Amino acid sequence: MNTFGNIFRLTSFGESHGEAIGGIIDGCPAGIEINKEFIQKELDRRKPGQSEITTSRDEPDKVEFLSGIYEGKTMGTPIGFTVKNRNQQSSDYEHYKNVYRPSHADFTYREKYLIRDHRGGGRSSARETIARVVGGAVAKIVLQKLKIKIIAYTSQVGPVRLERPYTDLDLKTVDATPIRCPDPVSAEKMIRYIRQIKEEGDTVGGIVTCVCEGVPAGLGEPVFGKLHAALGNAMLSINAAKGFEYGLGFDGVQYKGSEINDRFYRRSDGKIGTITNHSGGIQGGISTGEPIYFRVAFKPVATIMKDQQTVNEEGETIILHAKGRHDPCVLPRAVPIVEAMAAMVLLDYYLMNKSVLL
Amino acid sequence: MNTFGNIFRLTSFGESHGEAIGGIIDGCPAGIEINKEFIQKELDRRKPGQSEITTSRDEPDKVEFLSGIYEGKTMGTPIGFTVKNRNQQSSDYEHYKNVYRPSHADFTYREKYLIRDHRGGGRSSARETIARVVGGAVAKIVLQKLKIKIIAYTSQVGPVRLERPYTDLDLKTVDATPIRCPDPVSAEKMIRYIRQIKEEGDTVGGIVTCVCEGVPAGLGEPVFGKLHAALGNAMLSINAAKGFEYGLGFDGVQYKGSEINDRFYRRSDGKIGTITNHSGGIQGGISTGEPIYFRVAFKPVATIMKDQQTVNEEGETIILHAKGRHDPCVLPRAVPIVEAMAAMVLLDYYLMNKSVLL
Amino acid sequence: MNTFGNIFRLTSFGESHGEAIGGIIDGCPAGIEINKEFIQKELDRRKPGQSEITTSRDEPDKVEFLSGIYEGKTMGTPIGFTVKNRNQQSSDYEHYKNVYRPSHADFTYREKYLIRDHRGGGRSSARETIARVVGGAVAKIVLQKLKIKIIAYTSQVGPVRLERPYTDLDLKTVDATPIRCPDPVSAEKMIRYIRQIKEEGDTVGGIVTCVCEGVPAGLGEPVFGKLHAALGNAMLSINAAKGFEYGLGFDGVQYKGSEINDRFYRRSDGKIGTITNHSGGIQGGISTGEPIYFRVAFKPVATIMKDQQTVNEEGETIILHAKGRHDPCVLPRAVPIVEAMAAMVLLDYYLMNKSVLL
Amino acid sequence: MNTFGNIFRLTSFGESHGEAIGGIIDGCPAGIEINKEFIQKELDRRKPGQSEITTSRDEPDKVEFLSGIYEGKTMGTPIGFTVKNRNQQSSDYEHYKNVYRPSHADFTYREKYLIRDHRGGGRSSARETIARVVGGAVAKIVLQKLKIKIIAYTSQVGPVRLERPYTDLDLKTVDATPIRCPDPVSAEKMIRYIRQIKEEGDTVGGIVTCVCEGVPAGLGEPVFGKLHAALGNAMLSINAAKGFEYGLGFDGVQYKGSEINDRFYRRSDGKIGTITNHSGGIQGGISTGEPIYFRVAFKPVATIMKDQQTVNEEGETIILHAKGRHDPCVLPRAVPIVEAMAAMVLLDYYLMNKSVLL
Repeated sequence: MNTFGNIFRLTSFGESHGEAIGGIIDGCPAGIEINKEFIQKELDRRKPGQSEITTSRDEPDKVEFLSGIYEGKTMGTPIGFTVKNRNQQSSDYEHYKNVYRPSHADFTYREKYLIRDHRGGGRSSARETIARVVGGAVAKIVLQKLKIKIIAYTSQVGPVRLERPYTDLDLKTVDATPIRCPDPVSAEKMIRYIRQIKEEGDTVGGIVTCVCEGVPAGLGEPVFGKLHAALGNAMLSINAAKGFEYGLGFDGVQYKGSEINDRFYRRSDGKIGTITNHSGGIQGGISTGEPIYFRVAFKPVATIMKDQQTVNEEGETIILHAKGRHDPCVLPRAVPIVEAMAAMVLLDYYLMNKSVLL
Repeated sequence: MNTFGNIFRLTSFGESHGEAIGGIIDGCPAGIEINKEFIQKELDRRKPGQSEITTSRDEPDKVEFLSGIYEGKTMGTPIGFTVKNRNQQSSDYEHYKNVYRPSHADFTYREKYLIRDHRGGGRSSARETIARVVGGAVAKIVLQKLKIKIIAYTSQVGPVRLERPYTDLDLKTVDATPIRCPDPVSAEKMIRYIRQIKEEGDTVGGIVTCVCEGVPAGLGEPVFGKLHAALGNAMLSINAAKGFEYGLGFDGVQYKGSEINDRFYRRSDGKIGTITNHSGGIQGGISTGEPIYFRVAFKPVATIMKDQQTVNEEGETIILHAKGRHDPCVLPRAVPIVEAMAAMVLLDYYLMNKSVLL
Repeated sequence: MNTFGNIFRLTSFGESHGEAIGGIIDGCPAGIEINKEFIQKELDRRKPGQSEITTSRDEPDKVEFLSGIYEGKTMGTPIGFTVKNRNQQSSDYEHYKNVYRPSHADFTYREKYLIRDHRGGGRSSARETIARVVGGAVAKIVLQKLKIKIIAYTSQVGPVRLERPYTDLDLKTVDATPIRCPDPVSAEKMIRYIRQIKEEGDTVGGIVTCVCEGVPAGLGEPVFGKLHAALGNAMLSINAAKGFEYGLGFDGVQYKGSEINDRFYRRSDGKIGTITNHSGGIQGGISTGEPIYFRVAFKPVATIMKDQQTVNEEGETIILHAKGRHDPCVLPRAVPIVEAMAAMVLLDYYLMNKSVLL
Repeated sequence: MNTFGNIFRLTSFGESHGEAIGGIIDGCPAGIEINKEFIQKELDRRKPGQSEITTSRDEPDKVEFLSGIYEGKTMGTPIGFTVKNRNQQSSDYEHYKNVYRPSHADFTYREKYLIRDHRGGGRSSARETIARVVGGAVAKIVLQKLKIKIIAYTSQVGPVRLERPYTDLDLKTVDATPIRCPDPVSAEKMIRYIRQIKEEGDTVGGIVTCVCEGVPAGLGEPVFGKLHAALGNAMLSINAAKGFEYGLGFDGVQYKGSEINDRFYRRSDGKIGTITNHSGGIQGGISTGEPIYFRVAFKPVATIMKDQQTVNEEGETIILHAKGRHDPCVLPRAVPIVEAMAAMVLLDYYLMNKSVLL
């Protein structure tokens, strides 16, 4: 299952050390002007080697479009694209060939397919998310026309937690720091923590918060296509994701109904809104028109620069000496991926919603 | 979108105060003996009026099968079923007709469809989950043949939290208390808390933990059908769900990779397992063979027995005086629903996996 | 796979001699007034026992709606419905229990599922088409609002062929004769032929022609969802269907391009049309705005009132003495089914088309 | 909708004069050895410029695989591939830019998308079938392991009709003549006819017959996934296809049930077969184990080398002077495309069938 979405659909392909990563975007509305520089810029936000706190694998990650766009506009036909893999150092993985790296997908791919491409994790590599970022960038371009804006940021790294709610932050400053946290003080702490972890040869996880503004009321398909379930599914499909919550999420369980029910009122523009937004912009699986916000938990990167005991395919105990180039913390690069997935879901649901009324 | 699943698929219908709730189960393997008493028993676990801590709406909720089963066995053809609605008191909802209840789906359904059935929440009512429990019960019957076992329980109610991990609990005792918490001390505290909340006319949320044992390694479809993403999607589609996490989940972000990586070893039966299971039985979106465990957060029931200010369809401010019969806490009835959704996902993924190898 | 359609979707269930036939219509636009009498009338057009040339199985075939319609209007939620089976004479089938009837699905169902309901053909019975007619009737109601009209008729019975093109016929008279052929002379010949065949204890096939008027230009999804491919798929899914062609179809292969190319011109209303319509209203898989017409071939009913040699499940040669009540010719009852399937496809494609432009 | 199939799925992209045609094959079983020369050979069978009776557009049509195959074997991951467009002569189409060519998809694409790539028909070009042939070739490789064989051939060109049934022909000789008709006498007549038509600057249609041998009993998904409906849908999705029939098809309607019912018997190998095979190897939508055969009608190529009156986008009447390079008859190149689509359907249904029994 390498296709995502219902109407706006991304099908992706590619292994870490294969020829290319790529995909096909199907169902994009026709007649949309495509700014290829914007798409490349989005890719640049996820690419490796951006700063000292990301992996040093140096990939240009240039996207090439092969179809679906003519004279700068979408035609309604599928948009095929590829991003060549160039900086593969497959030899880095020779000594992994037979090994099940702890908390990697080596073992499970082998169990499932009886065969696997060990080089760089093959299909399980986060390089696969390149296709998502391209798909998401196209979705963002369409959403811009609908005045829907998606901004994600790093809200926690290891124990370093940004406590301020998104409403207190200047979300335009997300990219101001390499960690993509819009609170300068927290950003500095996070970066310092990552540096320290990196020096230890270790890795750390964190949380991305995402805010979607301008989403009109009415998006979301009950019963089995609730908007937050689609978002959750999308986020949990990102490598290393371990949890998803929206609105008050897990914290909300300790409140009483009377404390967190969102009461409706008539806004000054005549529309109906809610006074609070503990629901996170979704009620009954359908958007309320209030901002949607959610959080995604990412585990620490599994590849560490420390020796680990594990087994090989024959079940023999071995000591794994890590090599290769890896991120100490996936968070800054996860931010554009979270945004991309959110963009694809929201556009898909916007398009699905067009058939609700005749 | 009222269909769930890829191969094993449930399509459901029904409003709270309509004629019936029902569904069609498609893709169930042929030749499976169906124990209808078991299915009814599962329904009884979710039905209202089980104890003082659930709603007093009294529905027999008897399932009637209309097709797909012949001489006690599935035939591979679709299994149609209905559960009649009997104890509707639509007049309870007359005074809601025009009102947007806080944190309910009244407003969003109206925005989406421009029309809605206000009686008992219509399609957004949790009565819809009846169809899920029937579908899940059929899935459980099939999973039993595969030695796959799913057990959920209440692990938190408001601030009352069961701290012991599932490995410390006797999961066979889940149904011993009306709150469905297998730790008697915590169960008692939870029940006491719900009683108090109920007296206040208020409601409270909580967390369900679910454990799936016996799942073979290899289930899960990378990239866009990761097993935990499918589980997350399923759980988030349940009414009032606000969050999903598996393995260490959100808590895991504060650890270092070296602390929580699951190292492989050769088990005494010759198979390869992991020494720890922080991953929650899934790596790279594919099951490892270790137990899968996850947690689902549910918000407090939106209907409270207290006056609330809100607006009606005309945008006029009104005071809502709650009536009707409602659960102070959805948790005990959510437990069988979580199990049902997990069962459908696991069976679906088991069946999908059959085509991976020729 | 018991679900049909992409946005407007019918999921059906039911065996010939089970409790009921039924289905769930999902994705019907909200706010549509539903005329239940019209739906029942459509069902009456397909029901058995309408005339001497159809089977004498006498079923009231009353449809009961269980959800999705409130105060006479669709709500956007799934429409569940059932039609009880009443006049089953399962004992008629006792002597078939073990037998593979020639050109029936007994053998193939057994091979596929290793189990089958032998009574009346089980799921392979044409009673299953009841659900299609209900789904199609709902689709027709929606299409009426869009001024899209679908009319089918019997154009051939055995060797008796109606040679006049549909443009020469008064399509309002289809139901004037029990054979549903709008040409009185041909109708009379067809009926006489069926009577004769029936006396012989034999059966006969035929062709249904269908015309869809008012379909706007632009419906159809290249590449793998061409409008005629969707119609062909729909028609070929009807019991006993053996072929589908649209426009000039098979006959067209003998012409030269210069003879049958449809040239465009500007119509008096300013729109662009084609002078001829050999294409059958579809070019490149997308509707042109001209009438769509196609033909569906149905084989003779497999159940004949003559002895036939065949084998039983053990592979033993036996002589089958036919019993039961059967149609000598399926054509008149196929007409409303063809219309129903066409209606569902056209509405589905109309709704799909809404997302092509932003 | 540019995705085909349920489990074995092809998603394709590409316009005639864009950068490339390509696709992604998803759901191919893992561990299958891929013979790339075979795939290229299949592509060569459909490529232009093979003989005097096909178009002179000269494209190397070399396929490049970008993922999914490692050390010569499929890994279960998606197989991305591209075929570069090289011999585009877009200037040939400059004078078409604004014109609706008769019986082409120019008008309908424009109506649907409000934008189109006029060069070579854009997405509606038959170059799109390149992706199908690659997908089909991969499917054929898998089917070979299952001993399933698919052979198509040209059985009619304009009025020249091959009357002998497939059982009388030596199907190994299909490729012996450029028209791909295994009867030398008919082949010669067909070629002569095409030559004459070409000289006239005209085009002609025809029929492809396809035979599938070795298909096990039990494939096919009632009710809405009947095997012949899936095949029909697949064939009708090919450019210029106007009709599909299987078994006796349209001709069968004139027979009586007693004449064409296929009686079962026990074969010498102990299996149950049918004495005749008028059903075409499918009963009730499920394969019987007998050979499947069907026929597909193709209309004459719409582009002719004669002046045609039509209109432009402004609705002005103009005379179209044809240029460019085109096939006088699509049949010989349609043969491998029919085979490819049949192969993908059969493999898909084989894989789907794996979940019918536990």
